[in-house]
Amino acid sequence: MRTEPTTYNLLNTITFPEDLRQLSVEELPEVCKELRQDIIKEVSCNPGHFAASLGTVELTVALHYVFNTPHDRIVWDVGHQAYGHKILTGRREAFSTNRKFKGVRPFPSPEESDYDTFACGHASNSISAALGMAVAATKKGEKDRRVVAVIGDGSMSGGLAFEGLNNASSTPNNLLIILNDNDMSIDRSVGGMKQYLFNLTTSNRYNQLRFKTSRLLFKMGLLNEDRRKALIRFANSLKSMAARQQNIFEGMNIRYFGPINGHDVKNIARVLRDIKDMQGPKILHLHTVKGKGFEPAEKNPDIWHAPGKFNPETGERLKTDTSNLPPLFQDVFGETLVELAKENPKIVGVTPAMPTGCSMNKLMDAMPDRAFDVGIAEGHAATFSGGMAKEGMQPFCNIYSSFMQRAYDNVIHDIALLRLPVVLCLDRAGLVGEDGPTHHGVFDLAYFRPIPNLTISSPMDEHELRRLMYTAQLPDKGPFVIRYPRGRGALLDWKCPLEEVPIGKGRKLKEGKDLAVITLGPIGNVAARAIERAEKDKGLSIAHYDLRFLKPLDEALLHEVGLNFQHVVTIEDGVKKGGMGSAVLEFMADNDYIPHIRRIGVPDAFIEHGTIQELHHLCEMDEEGIYNILIKDDD
Amino acid sequence: MRTEPTTYNLLNTITFPEDLRQLSVEELPEVCKELRQDIIKEVSCNPGHFAASLGTVELTVALHYVFNTPHDRIVWDVGHQAYGHKILTGRREAFSTNRKFKGVRPFPSPEESDYDTFACGHASNSISAALGMAVAATKKGEKDRRVVAVIGDGSMSGGLAFEGLNNASSTPNNLLIILNDNDMSIDRSVGGMKQYLFNLTTSNRYNQLRFKTSRLLFKMGLLNEDRRKALIRFANSLKSMAARQQNIFEGMNIRYFGPINGHDVKNIARVLRDIKDMQGPKILHLHTVKGKGFEPAEKNPDIWHAPGKFNPETGERLKTDTSNLPPLFQDVFGETLVELAKENPKIVGVTPAMPTGCSMNKLMDAMPDRAFDVGIAEGHAATFSGGMAKEGMQPFCNIYSSFMQRAYDNVIHDIALLRLPVVLCLDRAGLVGEDGPTHHGVFDLAYFRPIPNLTISSPMDEHELRRLMYTAQLPDKGPFVIRYPRGRGALLDWKCPLEEVPIGKGRKLKEGKDLAVITLGPIGNVAARAIERAEKDKGLSIAHYDLRFLKPLDEALLHEVGLNFQHVVTIEDGVKKGGMGSAVLEFMADNDYIPHIRRIGVPDAFIEHGTIQELHHLCEMDEEGIYNILIKDDD
Repeated sequence: MRTEPTTYNLLNTITFPEDLRQLSVEELPEVCKELRQDIIKEVSCNPGHFAASLGTVELTVALHYVFNTPHDRIVWDVGHQAYGHKILTGRREAFSTNRKFKGVRPFPSPEESDYDTFACGHASNSISAALGMAVAATKKGEKDRRVVAVIGDGSMSGGLAFEGLNNASSTPNNLLIILNDNDMSIDRSVGGMKQYLFNLTTSNRYNQLRFKTSRLLFKMGLLNEDRRKALIRFANSLKSMAARQQNIFEGMNIRYFGPINGHDVKNIARVLRDIKDMQGPKILHLHTVKGKGFEPAEKNPDIWHAPGKFNPETGERLKTDTSNLPPLFQDVFGETLVELAKENPKIVGVTPAMPTGCSMNKLMDAMPDRAFDVGIAEGHAATFSGGMAKEGMQPFCNIYSSFMQRAYDNVIHDIALLRLPVVLCLDRAGLVGEDGPTHHGVFDLAYFRPIPNLTISSPMDEHELRRLMYTAQLPDKGPFVIRYPRGRGALLDWKCPLEEVPIGKGRKLKEGKDLAVITLGPIGNVAARAIERAEKDKGLSIAHYDLRFLKPLDEALLHEVGLNFQHVVTIEDGVKKGGMGSAVLEFMADNDYIPHIRRIGVPDAFIEHGTIQELHHLCEMDEEGIYNILIKDDD
Repeated sequence: MRTEPTTYNLLNTITFPEDLRQLSVEELPEVCKELRQDIIKEVSCNPGHFAASLGTVELTVALHYVFNTPHDRIVWDVGHQAYGHKILTGRREAFSTNRKFKGVRPFPSPEESDYDTFACGHASNSISAALGMAVAATKKGEKDRRVVAVIGDGSMSGGLAFEGLNNASSTPNNLLIILNDNDMSIDRSVGGMKQYLFNLTTSNRYNQLRFKTSRLLFKMGLLNEDRRKALIRFANSLKSMAARQQNIFEGMNIRYFGPINGHDVKNIARVLRDIKDMQGPKILHLHTVKGKGFEPAEKNPDIWHAPGKFNPETGERLKTDTSNLPPLFQDVFGETLVELAKENPKIVGVTPAMPTGCSMNKLMDAMPDRAFDVGIAEGHAATFSGGMAKEGMQPFCNIYSSFMQRAYDNVIHDIALLRLPVVLCLDRAGLVGEDGPTHHGVFDLAYFRPIPNLTISSPMDEHELRRLMYTAQLPDKGPFVIRYPRGRGALLDWKCPLEEVPIGKGRKLKEGKDLAVITLGPIGNVAARAIERAEKDKGLSIAHYDLRFLKPLDEALLHEVGLNFQHVVTIEDGVKKGGMGSAVLEFMADNDYIPHIRRIGVPDAFIEHGTIQELHHLCEMDEEGIYNILIKDDD
């Protein structure tokens, strides 16, 4: 651990990159040291993404040193790695509010700073976006504007990154792509591209070796001067051939440089200076170490991706005692999947680079040959699952709700159309809190509801999650969506027996006469408290139904509501436009019921970051918000 | 042109591939000749996709000859190229009903035949799906089951194909990928991968040349035996290096074979036999000619992708006189875009491999440097457009409605979140007819409506399309969706002046007292006829509103409806769940209006293929269907 006090002599002189650019190259290593220390200090007491930003300290300093930001555009992929960038671009003071409600945003955002050039959060978009910017600069004749995309090797597994690369060579642009290769996404990188990048590195060493070999053969007398020249000519023809084909980037007409050491800031600055004004698309391959400079993070970069609070001196992570708390929904998923897989040999698990985040790692540990981390590739995850299901396997494909947006067509075309029995588990559904607008999983109910053949469900608690998972893997259930939120459930004793839930059947949780409340998912527990309060305070009699299935709808339940209630309130942790409340409206209209219906859910706006509690309050979806609607409807 | 009568001596003996497998290898060229002739004959009188299937005749015959279909799985990408496959797999008799209502389906479909193994229609899914199947076969211990994906070079530009490749090396499987490289998608292929594949072909020739050179140097006395051996050792080290890195496929641990001539059926069969039982993932690169064997199609494969009826002897395409018909919506888009681009220098056009299909080719011809064909890459098309818009350009990004499903997250994350002024033009919206369930553009209204910041519109006719396009490119309009259908508009005189439409304002087309009809898009013209009939037949007085904007809603218009009508009918060419009708339901509920609302639209099922008229009738969305609802509501 570092124990030396850091004085921030240089960092204190830097508010914006123009200040950094006043320094000499020789001072850059010290800037990096101070910046790294500042990140460690800040994140140790205000939790956030950590190891990725430590790995890009030198790159960040070199970029802002060499490029004329913000006139030059740096597009960060995802943005986990951009804390150094934030600190160097006018947000050092504000950085203590990072990820807090109304504070610095979790990911770079043009709405926050001119130095943030594009939307960040979802992986693999940087090349396409930066290419658009670079082409625009060309079209507008802005010859002095440079555009740089910074993308990790993990993000390179996403098809969008490949589409961007594929297009980069077809159109006039001077884009620079920086490949930040640390062999990691959140968990370790997987797939052919990772292997390819590794080979590229190795073969660069071979290239150097080749010339050494040739010199050696000559010295050993195996080659005389004539022969050596002939050999050189021959080798050169091979070399030009190899140059044309050896490298996918060069082969796609993108000039390739590297790999170079991503922690030698002076050399990075030198290389960037050398290549920044070269015409045409180009890629610089950089090797970095995720967690660089903080030993525990270097050793376990996955754990230190977002470690929570920790002691910056000892590296000890500050743990709260969770033994008296209900489990995380993701862990109930992970444990239950293993339980089910033991009984049902057809079950396999699929995750697009989120084994830890969704607790698929439990299956990976228990049955490594039955769980697939396919890389950051949500579309492939869904279609691959469809292929397995077509041949009789029972895939559980777990994708965060907001990332499922990327597999939308795959679910329609490659799963629903053929009624393939893929279980799509949507973790992080609803408002997710500090990760903000790019990560809220609020659209899923609305975007999946119109798709034919899907069963769509959301459990109100851990027992229901287990029952739905059990039900989904029974024969002939077809494609089956289960969405559940980030965070903890409601039950300490969550290990209930696994039993079948009737498809499309909700539950009447409570009788009532004045008003019917229909909820979907865990927000039903909040509603139950609001109902209790409203009944107590106002003498109301409120019925509560847990719809459980958005699709197929429980028609008997809804007929009961339609026949017996003039006032209905629907509550869901998702967008109001097109969601569960709209399904209830449609049912009532189609069946000629005309109750007054109030819908509680996420309004038609991108919701910012903050704690889930703060955001539910903002959207009037917390106990108080629901209570207010319940008593209002009584007027 | 071919004039010789073809007798189908061999083809007549083949009902299923097992019949084909009775023949000798020597007979395969004749089978190919007959099969090709049969395709020409069939498609000349029953229009469909054409040139792609001519290019894969030899491959198709070789595949079914060598592999034990349907036990072995062939996954066709897209399926344009699969007519030969259909004819050889029990559907020769039925093939005259190809693409007709209740007839043979437009694309391979497992619901039609066991030889069709997966959903086809949307490009680039074959590798992922086939990988899933291959992994399933491995998991199930089915050692004798082989899985083959057949993918065109055009489809290889899609990110999903790359994600599949990337994952193919990570998991035990024996997948064979056949890369059908004809340098075409529907239009000519574009992008770096195309270049890369070309280089690969060239470098294969270099590889052969290298050994010839080495032999030559030896013969010329420039190398003696010792030197030659040293050189060979040296070259071998180069070669092993090159082998490791030269080829992206090999680099990703996928064994690469080829390229070979895709029209030498005997050789293809031989190679397939050689490699079919090799362990691990492998790719065979095949060069084919789109339109092979039919001269006009070889010369102009884009025109002959789906040529309509033609004379099989002369190659003359049978054209109908369209001078008295209203224009195609796509041409109004194309012409208007050129008009607008002449006035507004910020305008650029973006199409994912559909320049002809969406008439973006008009802009390409007029201003080649302002139109971008980005390859089959819908996600990139949207994000790339977002990048350009961020830097002040005004992109018109045209994507078929059903393919826009693939850019869903890109629209949310890379366009809507930052309110970037991209105009998203959705051609082929609504039911598209003969291309069937994979191509219907029926979900867009429902899936876009929940996205904040979007303006969503649909023109009722060509004039409205032009006005909306004009409006969308005015300053500060933000992301703007315009959806319009396949086929022709309603107006002969379509070139109206370009004028601004107020955002979020509908039109009252007709007063009425008994019932309000709200329509969106060109189906409003059908509704107008039904209204006229209903008024005449039943003495009704029906108001008709063209909503024009799904988002923002015209609240004044809807208040007028809510205040004045007890009965409302909504009509849209899209899914009923979550679409425009649901938006009206939500508005009425939120504002405490309780009219009876009937929604007309696409029901909750995948709709099959047929003419648009047949399908609208099926969904009770034609004049008769609408009429019946209008008069029913009067009861």
